Amino acid sequence: MIYFRSDYSQGAHPEVMEALMKTNMEHHDGYAMDVHSDHAAELVKELIGVEDCSVYMMIGGTNCNVTTIAAALKPYEGVITPRTGHAYFHEAGAVEATGHRVLTLPPENGKLTPEIIAKAWDEFEDDHTPLPRMVYISQPTESGSLYTKAEMEAISAYCKETNLLLYIDGARLGSALTCDACDFTIKDIPPLCDAFYIGGTKNGALMGEALVILNKDIDDHFRWMIKRQCGMLAKGRLIGVQFEALLEGGEDSLYYRLARETNRLAAKLRDGLTEMGCTFYGTSETNQIFPILPTPVVEALEEDFFFYRWAPEEDGMIPVRFVLGWGSTDADVDALLARIKELL
Amino acid sequence: MIYFRSDYSQGAHPEVMEALMKTNMEHHDGYAMDVHSDHAAELVKELIGVEDCSVYMMIGGTNCNVTTIAAALKPYEGVITPRTGHAYFHEAGAVEATGHRVLTLPPENGKLTPEIIAKAWDEFEDDHTPLPRMVYISQPTESGSLYTKAEMEAISAYCKETNLLLYIDGARLGSALTCDACDFTIKDIPPLCDAFYIGGTKNGALMGEALVILNKDIDDHFRWMIKRQCGMLAKGRLIGVQFEALLEGGEDSLYYRLARETNRLAAKLRDGLTEMGCTFYGTSETNQIFPILPTPVVEALEEDFFFYRWAPEEDGMIPVRFVLGWGSTDADVDALLARIKELL
Amino acid sequence: MIYFRSDYSQGAHPEVMEALMKTNMEHHDGYAMDVHSDHAAELVKELIGVEDCSVYMMIGGTNCNVTTIAAALKPYEGVITPRTGHAYFHEAGAVEATGHRVLTLPPENGKLTPEIIAKAWDEFEDDHTPLPRMVYISQPTESGSLYTKAEMEAISAYCKETNLLLYIDGARLGSALTCDACDFTIKDIPPLCDAFYIGGTKNGALMGEALVILNKDIDDHFRWMIKRQCGMLAKGRLIGVQFEALLEGGEDSLYYRLARETNRLAAKLRDGLTEMGCTFYGTSETNQIFPILPTPVVEALEEDFFFYRWAPEEDGMIPVRFVLGWGSTDADVDALLARIKELL
Amino acid sequence: MIYFRSDYSQGAHPEVMEALMKTNMEHHDGYAMDVHSDHAAELVKELIGVEDCSVYMMIGGTNCNVTTIAAALKPYEGVITPRTGHAYFHEAGAVEATGHRVLTLPPENGKLTPEIIAKAWDEFEDDHTPLPRMVYISQPTESGSLYTKAEMEAISAYCKETNLLLYIDGARLGSALTCDACDFTIKDIPPLCDAFYIGGTKNGALMGEALVILNKDIDDHFRWMIKRQCGMLAKGRLIGVQFEALLEGGEDSLYYRLARETNRLAAKLRDGLTEMGCTFYGTSETNQIFPILPTPVVEALEEDFFFYRWAPEEDGMIPVRFVLGWGSTDADVDALLARIKELL
Repeated sequence: MIYFRSDYSQGAHPEVMEALMKTNMEHHDGYAMDVHSDHAAELVKELIGVEDCSVYMMIGGTNCNVTTIAAALKPYEGVITPRTGHAYFHEAGAVEATGHRVLTLPPENGKLTPEIIAKAWDEFEDDHTPLPRMVYISQPTESGSLYTKAEMEAISAYCKETNLLLYIDGARLGSALTCDACDFTIKDIPPLCDAFYIGGTKNGALMGEALVILNKDIDDHFRWMIKRQCGMLAKGRLIGVQFEALLEGGEDSLYYRLARETNRLAAKLRDGLTEMGCTFYGTSETNQIFPILPTPVVEALEEDFFFYRWAPEEDGMIPVRFVLGWGSTDADVDALLARIKELL
Repeated sequence: MIYFRSDYSQGAHPEVMEALMKTNMEHHDGYAMDVHSDHAAELVKELIGVEDCSVYMMIGGTNCNVTTIAAALKPYEGVITPRTGHAYFHEAGAVEATGHRVLTLPPENGKLTPEIIAKAWDEFEDDHTPLPRMVYISQPTESGSLYTKAEMEAISAYCKETNLLLYIDGARLGSALTCDACDFTIKDIPPLCDAFYIGGTKNGALMGEALVILNKDIDDHFRWMIKRQCGMLAKGRLIGVQFEALLEGGEDSLYYRLARETNRLAAKLRDGLTEMGCTFYGTSETNQIFPILPTPVVEALEEDFFFYRWAPEEDGMIPVRFVLGWGSTDADVDALLARIKELL
Repeated sequence: MIYFRSDYSQGAHPEVMEALMKTNMEHHDGYAMDVHSDHAAELVKELIGVEDCSVYMMIGGTNCNVTTIAAALKPYEGVITPRTGHAYFHEAGAVEATGHRVLTLPPENGKLTPEIIAKAWDEFEDDHTPLPRMVYISQPTESGSLYTKAEMEAISAYCKETNLLLYIDGARLGSALTCDACDFTIKDIPPLCDAFYIGGTKNGALMGEALVILNKDIDDHFRWMIKRQCGMLAKGRLIGVQFEALLEGGEDSLYYRLARETNRLAAKLRDGLTEMGCTFYGTSETNQIFPILPTPVVEALEEDFFFYRWAPEEDGMIPVRFVLGWGSTDADVDALLARIKELL
Repeated sequence: MIYFRSDYSQGAHPEVMEALMKTNMEHHDGYAMDVHSDHAAELVKELIGVEDCSVYMMIGGTNCNVTTIAAALKPYEGVITPRTGHAYFHEAGAVEATGHRVLTLPPENGKLTPEIIAKAWDEFEDDHTPLPRMVYISQPTESGSLYTKAEMEAISAYCKETNLLLYIDGARLGSALTCDACDFTIKDIPPLCDAFYIGGTKNGALMGEALVILNKDIDDHFRWMIKRQCGMLAKGRLIGVQFEALLEGGEDSLYYRLARETNRLAAKLRDGLTEMGCTFYGTSETNQIFPILPTPVVEALEEDFFFYRWAPEEDGMIPVRFVLGWGSTDADVDALLARIKELL
């Protein structure tokens, strides 16, 4: 079985594991009050080019999203997401569990635009509806698509005009930053939003995400919010140590190298499929590929490859998802392309 | 100024006020543990033809909806509503405040169908999405439209098949039951759903709704739920006394008589407008009328009549809402029709 | 049966009912956007001597408490109450339902002091415990005792020093303001606290309390909070009209007159019992009296009088509660005293 | 600096790290749907002697407590804890964040008894107070004390009689099971309670706890509850792999061996201190020691040792806490004892 199922099917990259081994016997204070967590935060600040912000080592993406949203919103406020957004679609109602509406809008290729966001106000009627107060987007999106710099700027400007906070889910931010289509750097992100996170779990870490909070109001007593949301690890250094290993070196760091390599393999797979005449379900520029394949091809592939069917069969064709991860290899991609060629 | 703004612009019907006056000096135990609340519950049971259920005197519609939904759902479960449903659109996120998702679907003329509800399952992915567990509909809908008996039965059957509870918001149930298009009686409702309420506020009461819970699981410790949701009045008899006045006499009761008269006036207004060639925003069979009028007509009407613009202007036309209430008169309707005729 | 069970066993005072009758046929906009609600708010502002505040017509005391607490606190913050406080003891966990800890401390004669409140900080350990942020007290307390002006000032000063908000539950504020022991006026209250309410339900209203919010942060989008907490009545004027009737005339208003008369009867009962040698459960200066009576006396009284046993029997004696209400009469008190005299 | 600050100051035991290294490159499905998580669950079932239960690999203790409590309780129900219990004192209000009251009672030496728990009913008044529904205890307690088998049985019997669920927080269960005072085995626990967890974080794991749910009602859709509470790791195998390493071998497993050794060192420290005439803050039988030392001794010790002051100074003496962890050594204990001897 060759895995194209997700970018979290293996453990951590060996260099990350090595860092954990090397620091394992050190004694540190608990709850992320340790030098590694501090150092990791410093590396993040350097990378993003902002000193005046807070960086938290979080256990996972859902936890990042929910804790930040709950910290940012007043009880009567809601968060706008694309109907396909992770915070709506894949988090089991964890946002609503904190008492807030997730106001969903229909995205275009996984993305929101100012025009789409504006529709939220059509659903707003004074004190009878929750006040839209935050926009949640993912970069890249759940569909693998990428917001260009201009698109991010447009959303950011719209948010500022209409008193909306902007939060960017960066579960796969590495893939966004290093894909061919990317026309921005990570330093372009902080000026545009109120908070975002740099995903570790899906790019080489065992677990953990680095959450950056730029807006002081959201940051108020944020460690209380983490604890209250059950996301404070006793051995908090566990995440700090990993991000030290991932981020040392900035754009030449392990984090960037892993993402670049993953994108290279994704592009190879995408190009190979395109050459064979495949069409795709939406446009993905990052490490997830969504070809639409004939049902018998999908069924045959399932014998040797592990991946998701992404949408229901239609006219004998099934959209599937192939994801490249830090452990994916040229051999994996070659094997998949060869088999599909055989089957088509 | 003549009011067509809502069916809650006046106080209670004089007979209801009289009942409050008559019982005012009686001493009773608090929190709806009194003979009037009990008697009102008995009248409800008789009217709906079900003895084995619980009836609660509730302070308002939002409170009915939220308390029942919160009592019915486990933390990981959500409620399906039309995107235009009151529980989503007009309750300021009160359902989400109890930790539950409101999963909205696009209605047809304000109504859900089994086909529409089925789409909720497209958004369900094992333990990563809230489990759809209840369907919320209004009878009549927010748009004034009516579910026929067959339509209610189809939804009810679909709910039973797919393990969904069914809740019916009856804020204007009186208008539904007594309109010309109605092909069912109130006795047809209990077998089809798990809970519903008979709205008092919008049909002659000063305040208050009679909530009927048929499903024993929802009814478990329900008084605790009412209290926890801040909906338990110290002088609970206040609602009981009103429903005694409204419901005594079954289908000949004040409740039915008021609704019939309101519907008669609504029909008169609808027919008058139709005669003048008006078109309508959706199809309403009940006490709300949504004609689409030229902008100058709307502006002129606003000088003498009080009503809502219902949707944004399009091509020089504005959909407006005229609502008939228990205090509306033939004179009111005549004046409105005459003025529109003048203006058109 | 003569009622000493509560001060909410009857309907509204006849003058309040008259006001409801008189305004009943008027048309008004819904949701407390009407002239009566506005006028009632003006009367409150005049009475308390503060123009720059917000006044809301609320459906009940629990609703006041919970909505204000939820509006005032951030998610990680908690409210301090006496262990016997209404918000902890009699609201079915409605505060916790909004996600906040109720941190209870042992009161003295129903009251908190700065020394007692200070203990809350013993339970505070950085980001591992909720941050105490508000103090909730009742004036008078659930035990009928009264905070003197100096006691209120001491608590207020302590709260300001330690960054705690102060909220005063005035369910029976009328009784506090007009009892013999009272050494302050209602104008003394606003400078000391962030919010408080003037209870209507227990002093002549059919239902409703007038909530005063002095702190602008708590007041932010407060109508959204009311709606979200299911406390916004469609016919909001219902409460406004009642407070007009109650508060017109300031300290000579119906509200003050009813409370004074209730206190006079309470004092008469207290004095009568004291003369007979009764001891009391705590010290009450207001309209609730807690004598400790021999079990056989209590049992005999229960045949003709309706009241609560307040604590378990101990050494053959039972503390009971007699409450005087707006409808209580000299004849009621005389009958009770005569019967107790007979039985002792 | 020698650490006696906590039992979570180091990483994982080397054998646990080795297991993580060995399995690191394997591909597995996410969200704990993998063979290691399954195998770890099997090892737990074997160890506790119960096949018919569910075992979940959880990220941390607070997460275990909160998710289980939220899954077990209906909205109007509350959980009873000792006032010193972790779920009340050290979880930042995370239980209340799910809408439930934590009803605290004063413990004796950190422990509840049936007599103490019975006091919860004194605070229960029908539908005006949350219904006590679960008892939360820790074994051992936060104070290091141990419930004997008879004490656990008494609580369990009381709970069954009074319709209370029993939950046991086993953050340091290893220390309880292997201390000299222990008169039970882990197989004795399941029949007594509805859920409990075997703590990994404080006994050799990098992170993670194994939660055992015996009551089917609590177990209903529990994975949804984990996700909703943000506790589902993408690389769920991370916890499973660790518990495989810890629990293989049952009572001879690494888990038991580490706990035994930690307890041996704790006993050595306790005995050494007792010999020097020290008194203690409560009675601890497990890996936490709470001697009361003169202030100058404490101050001097703080130069070379890292530990907590546990309570405020009183009469020139300060209670401190020394905790032994899996990495503690005889040399550490000897150094501490020698230094205290010098200072006393």
